[in-house]
Amino acid sequence: MKIVVVLVLIQACWRCAEAHPLDPLTPSELNLVRTIITNSYPTSSSSNLTFQHVALDEPDKPQILSWLSSKSMAPPLPPRRAFVIARFQKQSLEITVDLSTRSIISTRVYKGHGFPTLTFVEQGLVSQLPFSYEPFKDSLNKRALNMSQVVCAAFTVGWFGEEKTKRVVKVKFGIPVPKAEGTEYRLSKLKPPFGPKLNGVGAIISLASIYDIEKQRYREVLYRGFISEVFVPYQDPTEEWYYTTYFDCGEYGFGQSASSLEPLTDCPPNAHFLDAFYADANGNPVKITNAFCIFEKHAGDIMWRHTEIAIPNQLITEVRADVSLVVRMVSTVGNYDYVIDWEFKPSGSIKFGVGLTGILGMKGGTYINTDQIKGETDIHGTLLADNTIGVYHDHFFTYYLDLDIDGQRNSFVKTTLQTQKVKDPKIPRKSYWTTVSETAKTEADGRVKLGLEAAELAVVNPNKKTKRGNKTGYRLLPGSVAHPLLVSDDYPQIRGAFSNYNVWVTPYNKSEKWAAGLFVDRSRGDDTLAVKSRKNREIENEDIVLWYTMGLHHVPSQEDYPVMPTLSVGFELRPTNFFEANPVLKAIVN
Amino acid sequence: MKIVVVLVLIQACWRCAEAHPLDPLTPSELNLVRTIITNSYPTSSSSNLTFQHVALDEPDKPQILSWLSSKSMAPPLPPRRAFVIARFQKQSLEITVDLSTRSIISTRVYKGHGFPTLTFVEQGLVSQLPFSYEPFKDSLNKRALNMSQVVCAAFTVGWFGEEKTKRVVKVKFGIPVPKAEGTEYRLSKLKPPFGPKLNGVGAIISLASIYDIEKQRYREVLYRGFISEVFVPYQDPTEEWYYTTYFDCGEYGFGQSASSLEPLTDCPPNAHFLDAFYADANGNPVKITNAFCIFEKHAGDIMWRHTEIAIPNQLITEVRADVSLVVRMVSTVGNYDYVIDWEFKPSGSIKFGVGLTGILGMKGGTYINTDQIKGETDIHGTLLADNTIGVYHDHFFTYYLDLDIDGQRNSFVKTTLQTQKVKDPKIPRKSYWTTVSETAKTEADGRVKLGLEAAELAVVNPNKKTKRGNKTGYRLLPGSVAHPLLVSDDYPQIRGAFSNYNVWVTPYNKSEKWAAGLFVDRSRGDDTLAVKSRKNREIENEDIVLWYTMGLHHVPSQEDYPVMPTLSVGFELRPTNFFEANPVLKAIVN
Repeated sequence: MKIVVVLVLIQACWRCAEAHPLDPLTPSELNLVRTIITNSYPTSSSSNLTFQHVALDEPDKPQILSWLSSKSMAPPLPPRRAFVIARFQKQSLEITVDLSTRSIISTRVYKGHGFPTLTFVEQGLVSQLPFSYEPFKDSLNKRALNMSQVVCAAFTVGWFGEEKTKRVVKVKFGIPVPKAEGTEYRLSKLKPPFGPKLNGVGAIISLASIYDIEKQRYREVLYRGFISEVFVPYQDPTEEWYYTTYFDCGEYGFGQSASSLEPLTDCPPNAHFLDAFYADANGNPVKITNAFCIFEKHAGDIMWRHTEIAIPNQLITEVRADVSLVVRMVSTVGNYDYVIDWEFKPSGSIKFGVGLTGILGMKGGTYINTDQIKGETDIHGTLLADNTIGVYHDHFFTYYLDLDIDGQRNSFVKTTLQTQKVKDPKIPRKSYWTTVSETAKTEADGRVKLGLEAAELAVVNPNKKTKRGNKTGYRLLPGSVAHPLLVSDDYPQIRGAFSNYNVWVTPYNKSEKWAAGLFVDRSRGDDTLAVKSRKNREIENEDIVLWYTMGLHHVPSQEDYPVMPTLSVGFELRPTNFFEANPVLKAIVN
Repeated sequence: MKIVVVLVLIQACWRCAEAHPLDPLTPSELNLVRTIITNSYPTSSSSNLTFQHVALDEPDKPQILSWLSSKSMAPPLPPRRAFVIARFQKQSLEITVDLSTRSIISTRVYKGHGFPTLTFVEQGLVSQLPFSYEPFKDSLNKRALNMSQVVCAAFTVGWFGEEKTKRVVKVKFGIPVPKAEGTEYRLSKLKPPFGPKLNGVGAIISLASIYDIEKQRYREVLYRGFISEVFVPYQDPTEEWYYTTYFDCGEYGFGQSASSLEPLTDCPPNAHFLDAFYADANGNPVKITNAFCIFEKHAGDIMWRHTEIAIPNQLITEVRADVSLVVRMVSTVGNYDYVIDWEFKPSGSIKFGVGLTGILGMKGGTYINTDQIKGETDIHGTLLADNTIGVYHDHFFTYYLDLDIDGQRNSFVKTTLQTQKVKDPKIPRKSYWTTVSETAKTEADGRVKLGLEAAELAVVNPNKKTKRGNKTGYRLLPGSVAHPLLVSDDYPQIRGAFSNYNVWVTPYNKSEKWAAGLFVDRSRGDDTLAVKSRKNREIENEDIVLWYTMGLHHVPSQEDYPVMPTLSVGFELRPTNFFEANPVLKAIVN
């Protein structure tokens, strides 16, 4: 009579009872990484070396699994390693550091296209540059603007077919909001300490398993899951805006952009908060307060119920209230705030929520009323306020979901619902539907565009069946399906080609984590999931990864100004013949 | 600084401060209706007259609106009237009763196809019939079944092309569940009083408006909304199952099937409960306890937030926690329990939730393992337990949504997102999307199959614009899109033709409430929304009704047995240029 419990390990550790091989790097480990690397580049001026990305180089899956399975004997941790991307003498270096031996075990000079994620230091420096540039200062004077009220921001520029590229950002006036009523959204003037930010990819859920009350043991579900990329192409083809086709993870860092969560408003009163650490551009650890919160969600939902009225003179009603466990982070990438929820239900379902809020991408314009927009003129957005246009754009959230259902070897099964004609002349009905299941053999079979046909998509373990003979599995219940509207040979769409399908399935490969590739700034799309999938590898009864892209097209409305009421989208992974029966039939929730 | 409030009037009244013309019939009014009608049919034996449906005949819209607008002067209520469907001498009568004059003002003998909703008395009588039928008793004996443990249930039989029809139900063994472990779902043996049930259509939301804090007044949004039909075709073409193609509202009564809500489990601790009354088959009022609950939902969601990091040496974070108002009912139609939520957000969004739980439609079978199913055999479902198959089926929920955005005259606007090629040779990007809006002129323009193209659907008031010149409106954010898979000339699909499109728009007509028609049992599809829409009436700048069908195909899984963990689906109506700006910018939620 105990309620099922979900084991959650995330990329942050709040007084962990014991060390786990997937723990993120601690402050002392981050310091050690910095020391090891700066020692190896002693001749260069230190200002010449910058840390763009410092994260745990997680042990290989077999090491983790053997550590897990022998856990009762307190086995030693696998070697702790760090993966670092550094810039040194205008080159991008991929460095792997072994912390136990305090040594660099591999260094690779990246020769391909694209550049690493921008650091905050770089973005800050770039944003200040215009203020020492005389023509810019003149221009401010000419407009009678007070320099202290002007903000510049650094934007990635993408790639549009240039033969040679270098690291470049474009600097734009930060939102030239007119002094209109209704643009102030602060309750009070605020709070000094400059924002702690988290590096890496944001929330990583590792080794999520579920306790099977009948089998009396934990069963594997998700080896590792995270948001791999968020592709946000704006839809204004003019000189000032055409290049705004952001990759929020690869260019800006979705974890680096995490906001400290505010108790009682960002998370409910019963939330627990977790701090985290990242390495700044100099390799120094920076503490982040309240990077994550974890809470039990009591939303008033019903876990299951039934009222039975068919039995004469008896009324049977059984109801169980629902409660779930939510892991939340908020990533603020420039103007947009993404509320990322991982919701674990006692029934075994995992719900993935994204709340979109924050400030729209806006541009100035000469209009104050739509009547002024004449004829064929396209303003590429919605007029929100005086001289303020909210620009059309998309959001494509690509989730990396390494499902290991009851073990590593899994298959991807697509079950289509097909109309059949009734053949029996005694039956007056003409038609019905039935299911036809196909197991994907290679990556080509694993690509799915949703919405074209009625289908169920599941990852199953073909080697584990229920007593009834059904393969144990988890089903994808998609949400907010969108398809890209750019032409496929357009540069942003080549770089964002992982959005061409809503679902991809690849064989597990530790190095294949990033839907847009590892060096995304100014990338040319030669390292995307779409390119990797072309290898058409075997995926049947293999260790496979499900990539799901949830998307939405955003036509702004005036309500989205000046701060957007949260728009919520989400999808669900739901056990399907994973359990022998309803796993919460015996749940008691108080 | 007050939070916006939504005015909600529902088909039940909990110590109303004053009478409202849309109040449902009170017990004394129900008694009066019974008296008036039985007095008018004195010569017949009383057992010959049955009340199939008794509900308020709501006043015409102009009467309601004039009552509302002159409310401050405490105007008299419009005449109270009841609409009754009765069976008398094997005929269906549509009777309108005026309660103030205590008279029948119209009677119509319905000559068309189809029959009214089954009453519980009828279903109960039918379910007992087999027990006095000798061959049935013999068959129980032959199977060594104890009669006290056998339950029979009455199922509607649909229409499959017969020239003549009469009122018939089929009686099936109630779920022949084998004595397997895990089928018991009661925590304890239970609770006598036989179930209060609600007649009519379930929750009706009337006159939902929102307080505009800037304009300092309530603004109209939804004149009336309710679930008009729930079409549930099962997908087993065999003799025993082909006819199971239920219309849960028209055949069984979605309100009549309401379950009494259990405090603390069906609704959270802060819920308020509302009783309701209905007329039984003899016309007597029956009280229902806790037919609805209303509660503030504190789910830990974020209403809006932003962290601003672009301003040097300043970190600005503003967050508002979300809270919403939920109106809930649960309709248990035979085996299935539908949790119907209307969620009103302070931002003006209305979220429509349906939770599917309860017991699957199941059939017996000879199998205990899928290995036994040979070759081409199709069991039309999923093997859930010994000899137990959960049958494939669909659910199509058709919502009637009489939006009156800022007044009655509205238009339906479809805005498609269309790919454009970049023509300016100086711009290296190749493509973008933009919006093309079309206003529906007639009903044919208002039919939409979702999923075929990227589009935004909105109901707008073309006569009311924001200061920016945008038409005030509400947008439909669809959820769980499904299309019927039966062939269109199949009898169930002719009767359920309103599911052929996900969206329909019709001109408001007080008599057009029922997507499947008024007499649905054994109907022939000649009174459906699809037939009405063929008139192709004008819908531009008219009083219009939006019909939205949310659907899902259900391939059962073992987890759905013996009681299904709630599967949640939903959609949203969201203000779009209805407000000048974010209406909850100044909200303070404690």
